Amino acid sequence: MKDFEMGRNIKLVLAYDGTAYHGWQMQPEHPTIQKSLHQALWRVLGGPTQPPHGSGRTDAGVHALAQIVTFMTDKPIPPENLTAALNDVLPPDIRVLSAEEAAPDFHPRDCAKAKTYRYRLLRAKICSPFLARFVNHYPYPLDEDAIIAAAGIVEGEHDFSSFAAVDPEKGIDDEDRSKVRTIFSSVWKREGEELIYEVRGSGFLHHMVRNLVGTFLLLGRGTISAKDLKRILDLKDRSAAGPTVGPEGLYLVNVEY
Amino acid sequence: MKDFEMGRNIKLVLAYDGTAYHGWQMQPEHPTIQKSLHQALWRVLGGPTQPPHGSGRTDAGVHALAQIVTFMTDKPIPPENLTAALNDVLPPDIRVLSAEEAAPDFHPRDCAKAKTYRYRLLRAKICSPFLARFVNHYPYPLDEDAIIAAAGIVEGEHDFSSFAAVDPEKGIDDEDRSKVRTIFSSVWKREGEELIYEVRGSGFLHHMVRNLVGTFLLLGRGTISAKDLKRILDLKDRSAAGPTVGPEGLYLVNVEY
Repeated sequence: MKDFEMGRNIKLVLAYDGTAYHGWQMQPEHPTIQKSLHQALWRVLGGPTQPPHGSGRTDAGVHALAQIVTFMTDKPIPPENLTAALNDVLPPDIRVLSAEEAAPDFHPRDCAKAKTYRYRLLRAKICSPFLARFVNHYPYPLDEDAIIAAAGIVEGEHDFSSFAAVDPEKGIDDEDRSKVRTIFSSVWKREGEELIYEVRGSGFLHHMVRNLVGTFLLLGRGTISAKDLKRILDLKDRSAAGPTVGPEGLYLVNVEY
Repeated sequence: MKDFEMGRNIKLVLAYDGTAYHGWQMQPEHPTIQKSLHQALWRVLGGPTQPPHGSGRTDAGVHALAQIVTFMTDKPIPPENLTAALNDVLPPDIRVLSAEEAAPDFHPRDCAKAKTYRYRLLRAKICSPFLARFVNHYPYPLDEDAIIAAAGIVEGEHDFSSFAAVDPEKGIDDEDRSKVRTIFSSVWKREGEELIYEVRGSGFLHHMVRNLVGTFLLLGRGTISAKDLKRILDLKDRSAAGPTVGPEGLYLVNVEY
């Protein structure tokens, strides 16, 4: 069979406000990003298509600045027309930022080399109604300098079992059971009224970024020390680390190939 | 009767994302800002209160950066505690920014000397999902320089009948039937990817800012000239002016006393 007969592999860059969705992954009973996009593709392409593939799942309420998605089509629609056509039928909290034809063997999850996530904590006393969907409001006392100084401790290749959700035996990214991931950079910084975590890694386990943030918050509150953070990582035990913070502050920033 | 027995007059500064509300004004069947605040006051003050007064109505979907509100109470709760107590029970898209005791005769509508509204037009080709609730997405061709140059034409004291909603015989601000208002300043400016209208006046008729914006858009599209804009103002005829633009780009910025 020729590539042409298999259809073209179209790659989309997607941004979404995840507030109203039960995450990326298709669910029969709930609105999800994948389902909305699948319905939009069906309408724009004029018939059934396979569900689009994403670079990885995002959980309920999590946002994306640049989720990478592919789908196959044998329709001759030019990719540059797809962006406008899809945005015409998608809800305004999901936008296609760009579309292009990708190599036939490009898969947004399997080919990913690195991902960056961002977590926004608003430190202001009152959370503006215009930010309420987009930040975790955390006005409580916090030793921000201690958090900023400890950020790099989780960099490098580690077994991140202490920071992985226990129930589903899956990562955000892949289905293998190894909990070893490499974090290339882990940085906390102050930007205006926000304390922001930015983490770039080879891949992330389910809830990993939100569990890291929850543990850094324990450190900022003085409950644990930087030495404890290192020890929690080494323990490979989820119960040793901090709680999972809310999804509203989390963004998939980009995926590198 | 002493002032004490009449209760204290508490003034609040309120910000809200109006997307989910049918405007400021209480309505039996729909969520409104006034109703949400009234319910919050009832809970925080531990019993029935009169509905709060606003500086004026905002329509369904319109936002506020600083709506001014008062209510009477004989409860001894310090105003500085009210902000946090109200924000604990209000939904996150409505925030009390500050609370203080005002003079007994202060009324946020009757005492207002000037109000400022802002209208945000997003000129980008694609509207970010994080801006979708907060701007009017207008990616179409527009002679922005012509709009910016004509902005001042509506300044001064005029009968604004051409820009007033026809059906309800009420202004946003007051119930008198005169359509004469004074616009102190009317300015269009480019800020990044947005074309923004900022208008400060003695008061505004129902839909007046949105009808002004709709008419400036006719000018930017070349449908009317600056001379036509002056003529439309003089005609005192709603049918002469442009359409009412959507509420999602409109903000009550502040109220001066």
